[in-house]
Amino acid sequence: MAFRDQFPVLDRLAYLNAGTDGPIPRAAIETARAELDAQGAEGRLYAHFARRFELADQLRAGYARLMNAAPEDVAITSGTSAGLGAVLAGLDIGPGDEIVTSDAEHPGLIGPLLAARERGATVKAVPFAELANAVTASTTLVAASHVSWITGELAPAELAEVPVPVILDGAQGAGAVPVDVKALGCVAYAAAGQKWLCGADGTGMLYLDPEFGERVKTIFPTYFSFEDTGLGLEGRFKASASRFDLPLPREAVALSAGALEVLEAEGLDAILTRAADLTDVFAAKLAEAGYTVAPRARTTLVSFEVEDPEAKREQLLERGVAVRNLPGTPYLRASVGAWNDESDLDCLLEAL
Amino acid sequence: MAFRDQFPVLDRLAYLNAGTDGPIPRAAIETARAELDAQGAEGRLYAHFARRFELADQLRAGYARLMNAAPEDVAITSGTSAGLGAVLAGLDIGPGDEIVTSDAEHPGLIGPLLAARERGATVKAVPFAELANAVTASTTLVAASHVSWITGELAPAELAEVPVPVILDGAQGAGAVPVDVKALGCVAYAAAGQKWLCGADGTGMLYLDPEFGERVKTIFPTYFSFEDTGLGLEGRFKASASRFDLPLPREAVALSAGALEVLEAEGLDAILTRAADLTDVFAAKLAEAGYTVAPRARTTLVSFEVEDPEAKREQLLERGVAVRNLPGTPYLRASVGAWNDESDLDCLLEAL
Repeated sequence: MAFRDQFPVLDRLAYLNAGTDGPIPRAAIETARAELDAQGAEGRLYAHFARRFELADQLRAGYARLMNAAPEDVAITSGTSAGLGAVLAGLDIGPGDEIVTSDAEHPGLIGPLLAARERGATVKAVPFAELANAVTASTTLVAASHVSWITGELAPAELAEVPVPVILDGAQGAGAVPVDVKALGCVAYAAAGQKWLCGADGTGMLYLDPEFGERVKTIFPTYFSFEDTGLGLEGRFKASASRFDLPLPREAVALSAGALEVLEAEGLDAILTRAADLTDVFAAKLAEAGYTVAPRARTTLVSFEVEDPEAKREQLLERGVAVRNLPGTPYLRASVGAWNDESDLDCLLEAL
Repeated sequence: MAFRDQFPVLDRLAYLNAGTDGPIPRAAIETARAELDAQGAEGRLYAHFARRFELADQLRAGYARLMNAAPEDVAITSGTSAGLGAVLAGLDIGPGDEIVTSDAEHPGLIGPLLAARERGATVKAVPFAELANAVTASTTLVAASHVSWITGELAPAELAEVPVPVILDGAQGAGAVPVDVKALGCVAYAAAGQKWLCGADGTGMLYLDPEFGERVKTIFPTYFSFEDTGLGLEGRFKASASRFDLPLPREAVALSAGALEVLEAEGLDAILTRAADLTDVFAAKLAEAGYTVAPRARTTLVSFEVEDPEAKREQLLERGVAVRNLPGTPYLRASVGAWNDESDLDCLLEAL
């Protein structure tokens, strides 16, 4: 079956919304249904827990491949903000800290930053392109997007060289552009399963550099955080990143693992290249048609100016085109994946 | 349809394991499947988010009824430990604190207690029955089970009168015994959706007393924590307990809401009474058959001594009876719900 045909929503819509939530492959829905049905029919006993651990490790391995990380450095979380929250809350942050971030971050990072500020840290927000330049001798941490959710710009490559730990919000990175946590030089990379990886809401990943990880306390532990759950108050948390694993529903993990399988069967590198090429075409044609396209990089987001973006977004949906508006900006944002093709672009241009 | 017949697993097993994970009603599985299918076919756009909020508020209202709390004092979480973790991590806890707990707590509470101890607090573990007596002038907090997961005992009623805040782990309480957060005198009550309420893994509830809640910082915020997500670093978290809402998958919330509907259609009070009566019969018959039953109260758990509980548990499952063993104790634990009847007890006694 052609890749595109594996995503039922594409029969119905020019679906350009993976930056919020990706299209779900039919096979992943079917996998999740089977896992649901099994829980109803067989109950949830020891085999159920074994299956949950198996699926979590399968997903962990896939996310690790995606980020060029070792599986033991990857936690299975409920999403980008959960990973960012676990790291920022687990650090010994206080009045001595200055965190450099950008002035265009997503609430998923803003939340943990507000919490850090409440503990006394200074949060210095600068333009996205200035992130690396803004690091001074007072800076103790950088926390910012890998790919801007507003414009599709990439964080400055110079961030890999700054002399302080860098925590990246990879919500628009993982599954959208190549991610190599070593090359990015980050100590933590948090991302989502439901966006560019077409998985379930409430799934995600956290890469944590093992050396830096020693500084991150497990302040929000769950059953899955323990080395051995039988030791009571003598218990200890795992040393690996999986101490930050969250207790996700079996069917959600299965859905995300199933979706990743569909993407990997097509070839992740191939997908990323096709999506980036197609997004470049989208951006060029929108500019050609007279739209002002936001400054962007070779990513899978194209934001362009329209009058009254919210009303326009609703109109477009009525015409079978799914994009999003970005409140507080003049932009509509189209999210382009390898599941899209030029017909979706034609629909968008026509509907505009 | 008879109540029991709504739970497919009961056709196959004497299912006595709701203390871990409840049996799931057929209708709840079907609801979850429909929500999954809709996400695949329709994509996940604004209507999807509206549906998620609607389902979360439906579940919140149900959990609020169950705990005799106002919906604005209830957060929708991923389970008991998430709620306990949010409260304990959000409190300004340090070397001046003494937390009284019992020596028989579940990892879901042990985890947050270990994290509190790492921040300098003293954790004083006493026998479960001594919880109220152990509170002294040095005590700043009590954190313990409402119903013991080991024995089925109830926390001392005197806890309602102690002069320090009481945080209850309601994993074996909510849906098993009557829960009235006002009468319990607790400032926080955290419980699970997947156990006695027959819902999805990864769902749960947190009641937070609004006055006490002012002391609990939002250190692990998500998109759903914000009053208004459009304000960037000027943003603020909600004042209501829903600032602790976690971003759960739509199908999981639908499953838990659907399961609660099935229970409420039967009548929650009636269910609790029937389950308690039936558990009393279980306990009496086990004692009559010569088994040593752990000290218990009028709850839905019966723990009884066997030789090699783990091997016995496996044998029982081969004979169609699902119970659990409790590592580090001599017990097998039977969890009895209103979906069970005396035939399940007969199966258990026969299989033993």
